[in-house]
Amino acid sequence: MKIGFVGLGNMGSAMARNLVKAGHIVMVYNRTRARTEGFASVAGTPAEAGTGEIVITMLADDQAIGDAAQSLLKAMRPGAIHISMSTISPALSERMQQAHAQAGQGYVAAPVLGRPEAAAAAKLFILAAGPADALATCRPIFEALGQRTFLLGDNPSAANIVKLSCNFLLAAAIESLAEAFAWTRKAGIDPQVYLDLLTTTVFTAPVYKTYGRLIAEEAYTPAGFKMPLGLKDVRLALAAAESSNVPLPMASLIHDHMVGALALGFENLDWSALGRIAALRAGLPPL
Amino acid sequence: MKIGFVGLGNMGSAMARNLVKAGHIVMVYNRTRARTEGFASVAGTPAEAGTGEIVITMLADDQAIGDAAQSLLKAMRPGAIHISMSTISPALSERMQQAHAQAGQGYVAAPVLGRPEAAAAAKLFILAAGPADALATCRPIFEALGQRTFLLGDNPSAANIVKLSCNFLLAAAIESLAEAFAWTRKAGIDPQVYLDLLTTTVFTAPVYKTYGRLIAEEAYTPAGFKMPLGLKDVRLALAAAESSNVPLPMASLIHDHMVGALALGFENLDWSALGRIAALRAGLPPL
Amino acid sequence: MKIGFVGLGNMGSAMARNLVKAGHIVMVYNRTRARTEGFASVAGTPAEAGTGEIVITMLADDQAIGDAAQSLLKAMRPGAIHISMSTISPALSERMQQAHAQAGQGYVAAPVLGRPEAAAAAKLFILAAGPADALATCRPIFEALGQRTFLLGDNPSAANIVKLSCNFLLAAAIESLAEAFAWTRKAGIDPQVYLDLLTTTVFTAPVYKTYGRLIAEEAYTPAGFKMPLGLKDVRLALAAAESSNVPLPMASLIHDHMVGALALGFENLDWSALGRIAALRAGLPPL
Amino acid sequence: MKIGFVGLGNMGSAMARNLVKAGHIVMVYNRTRARTEGFASVAGTPAEAGTGEIVITMLADDQAIGDAAQSLLKAMRPGAIHISMSTISPALSERMQQAHAQAGQGYVAAPVLGRPEAAAAAKLFILAAGPADALATCRPIFEALGQRTFLLGDNPSAANIVKLSCNFLLAAAIESLAEAFAWTRKAGIDPQVYLDLLTTTVFTAPVYKTYGRLIAEEAYTPAGFKMPLGLKDVRLALAAAESSNVPLPMASLIHDHMVGALALGFENLDWSALGRIAALRAGLPPL
Repeated sequence: MKIGFVGLGNMGSAMARNLVKAGHIVMVYNRTRARTEGFASVAGTPAEAGTGEIVITMLADDQAIGDAAQSLLKAMRPGAIHISMSTISPALSERMQQAHAQAGQGYVAAPVLGRPEAAAAAKLFILAAGPADALATCRPIFEALGQRTFLLGDNPSAANIVKLSCNFLLAAAIESLAEAFAWTRKAGIDPQVYLDLLTTTVFTAPVYKTYGRLIAEEAYTPAGFKMPLGLKDVRLALAAAESSNVPLPMASLIHDHMVGALALGFENLDWSALGRIAALRAGLPPL
Repeated sequence: MKIGFVGLGNMGSAMARNLVKAGHIVMVYNRTRARTEGFASVAGTPAEAGTGEIVITMLADDQAIGDAAQSLLKAMRPGAIHISMSTISPALSERMQQAHAQAGQGYVAAPVLGRPEAAAAAKLFILAAGPADALATCRPIFEALGQRTFLLGDNPSAANIVKLSCNFLLAAAIESLAEAFAWTRKAGIDPQVYLDLLTTTVFTAPVYKTYGRLIAEEAYTPAGFKMPLGLKDVRLALAAAESSNVPLPMASLIHDHMVGALALGFENLDWSALGRIAALRAGLPPL
Repeated sequence: MKIGFVGLGNMGSAMARNLVKAGHIVMVYNRTRARTEGFASVAGTPAEAGTGEIVITMLADDQAIGDAAQSLLKAMRPGAIHISMSTISPALSERMQQAHAQAGQGYVAAPVLGRPEAAAAAKLFILAAGPADALATCRPIFEALGQRTFLLGDNPSAANIVKLSCNFLLAAAIESLAEAFAWTRKAGIDPQVYLDLLTTTVFTAPVYKTYGRLIAEEAYTPAGFKMPLGLKDVRLALAAAESSNVPLPMASLIHDHMVGALALGFENLDWSALGRIAALRAGLPPL
Repeated sequence: MKIGFVGLGNMGSAMARNLVKAGHIVMVYNRTRARTEGFASVAGTPAEAGTGEIVITMLADDQAIGDAAQSLLKAMRPGAIHISMSTISPALSERMQQAHAQAGQGYVAAPVLGRPEAAAAAKLFILAAGPADALATCRPIFEALGQRTFLLGDNPSAANIVKLSCNFLLAAAIESLAEAFAWTRKAGIDPQVYLDLLTTTVFTAPVYKTYGRLIAEEAYTPAGFKMPLGLKDVRLALAAAESSNVPLPMASLIHDHMVGALALGFENLDWSALGRIAALRAGLPPL
């Protein structure tokens, strides 16, 4: 298929490469031109990337997506499909769905689970929602990018909600580890012994291993996922849940700790630096 | 070895049986006599069970342990060892350590991770702390009961702290699932689809599978671990952390939700009925 | 002075009347025409009301103010001043300040403290911020509306922040009363005795008397200030504080309880129905 | 009447003096002998102070009261009344009530509202509960100590609950001020201007004036009421409410902040140093 790909960050560039590998004709766009190196076809504007059958956006936040979507709306042909793969607010997803529908264009939300390495290995999990025929059209694309696609119905924003809820669950696991390590460390228990114990008994999921290690070693830099991005997702989760009249008290608690992290200048640390915040609350010096 | 075993609940009776299987001479005591059936040697009082080389207590709470410990202190011979395997407060563990030391007796804290099935299969994880020589003496016992023993130093209460912190982490995982399911369900996402998605992607740990299923199906009875027991452990965690001047905000939040669960009459539901509490907060009717 | 007044709600209509009484030439605008009855000069559009020396906006929320501000920007003459007296986000206030400055127009933020009765009696407290000369020009207007004006510097959004912080403090007092009444009532203490005790000893401020009585009697309707408006202000407070990297954990807690109130259909109850939410959490039936 | 008075702290010594002034025969006891200076009749033990018609205890905490109560139980004559005026747990109050009843002695709980200056001026508010005849006997004592007595029924622990709930409400007011000052100060608003604004408009109660000033000036030492005492009362409130299955989420939040204050070494600061904790969370340096 003829695919435009807007947004070549760590995730996006790996994904676009996998689409090329799978034999698609891919025209990429990125604001910073340098990252387009190695791609055969490079668009000068988002609109130019929007002239194929499919255009995929993989951008940082609602602001960036919203700007790009304005251009795409005008550039896309009737029947073309916009696949929004970024982590954005369900509210923006709904607005884009309506705008594309009015323009006779298709819209599918398909945010992903997985880190850049999974993106490079085409091992992402894809959370897809939208009209059944559009999803069917997109199937080869999802297969080129991920190991499994979850179909979440014909309402695109459902996929965005599920994605945000997963990031909320990750943040909750991190915060719980942050508090548990601060407590046990202050009570004299060796963080490495504790980490080994947790991750070989009840908490064997990779999430606990990955973040448990970062917290046990206070290895918050270089950041895999920076604190402000974590805060953004928790904020989106709170707002989306609120629009359904659902309180998320644990998300509120995490939100406040992340805001406090930024107050202390942690904007370049990994979001697992909630561990440092918990340690500070307990009066513990850095390791 | 000649071992007394006090407390034949679901966990204790399975553990005592494994000690018999391993060739130890086991004299059991239980308040409700019926549960001692099938054991060759039955004590009439906790004190009588305390006359061997080792006495193990596996009772419901601080109150029960504290009462038994009074009897054992008087009955145990110098050099005999009390292995406290219940989930109790670190503060009580410290008091028992001192009392036994004054009486020339040994004391080891060795709470366990695992449910009754794991106890029956001798697959428990044992969190042990106490004087090195006492731990060495207890080694064959731990090997008869569990698949792995973690040695947590010579301060018995460290083992109790680690055990409580594990239960806090479990409760945190449950509460996060409770909120995520309430939100996504209200947003129209099928709980079974959501459960499958979570547990085959990022949250593959058994904890998420077990409790995710209970919440997705609102299957809170029969209870694997009743709400008041969960609340007890969270309360003990908060008190123990406070004694080290460590706040545990997530534990406080969970505590309050559990108290609210009891206010609604949930005392016989599984502690994963935090899922029902989250659903009620969101205005969702029972499934 | 020649003053336009946009927004004749319960507060606005009382305020506009006081300006007329003070001898100003007032042209009012309201979306629902019926409320303009009794005013000599009625504008057909917000823009028409913006043609004098001063235009005051007193509208429900950011959305309404933002829409009106677009019209005013085009209609106002250079040197005319927009006094924004609504409770809005500091962020919107900053955007309006910049837009008016670019158009050579003045902008002052002057939200008020006080209920409709205080507005009618010209007993409001006015929280004003903006350029010193603009504040000086507005002085006679403030004097016609309130009993005292607090000058909060030349940065208009400071006044909006202070106003939101006052509403946060009110919400916190309400929530604390909600919890205290739920607890003491469940413990068998008569709510009226308790109310009398509180408000004649330590908590003599009108806030505790007013909201204490509403909670003691569960008199949540008719609403003086509806739950969704309270939630809006707490949400604005959280967002504004977050933009300064300041966590407000108490506001987060109240936010979640208010969202839960809407989940239960409390959108027409007074915001003091946090008392009902606390009672429900405690398993208490309505009075 | 012949009255024993146990506990001559800042509150107790002022109260005992007022009983002497009112013409009662007062025998005082204090652990630290120096504080008994100036009193005509000094007991060598709590028991000795318990031999009159009435014995009043005014001690620091449950531990101190519990110890004294053991002695008093044995020393008091049948029909004598123990008035417990300290801030203690409702649970301890219930145990003392039962023990005194079994010994044929009377028991009244009568904690007070007011600071040492109010105690000295006989301007305390007295929260009294117990059997009607015992309360009638105690009336002249209450009149010698306070400006008003609130009768809270025949269940002594009700008075203890009300007292704890008042301290919870105070703590909530302090925490809300702490957060509001941290936010507005970081947003560039002068704390003194803000204090003046708050306390002359909506928050005119002495509580807001007193604690608002301490927070605005960060004047946390010398402490009027030390952080560990505040934490003790919040802890008692949480435990008492929990025993009625009532969650107090605001108390939990305050509890955690107070524990964090102790983690930072604030044990000698006033409990309003919650203001410093909020400032630290916001990344603000000390004034």
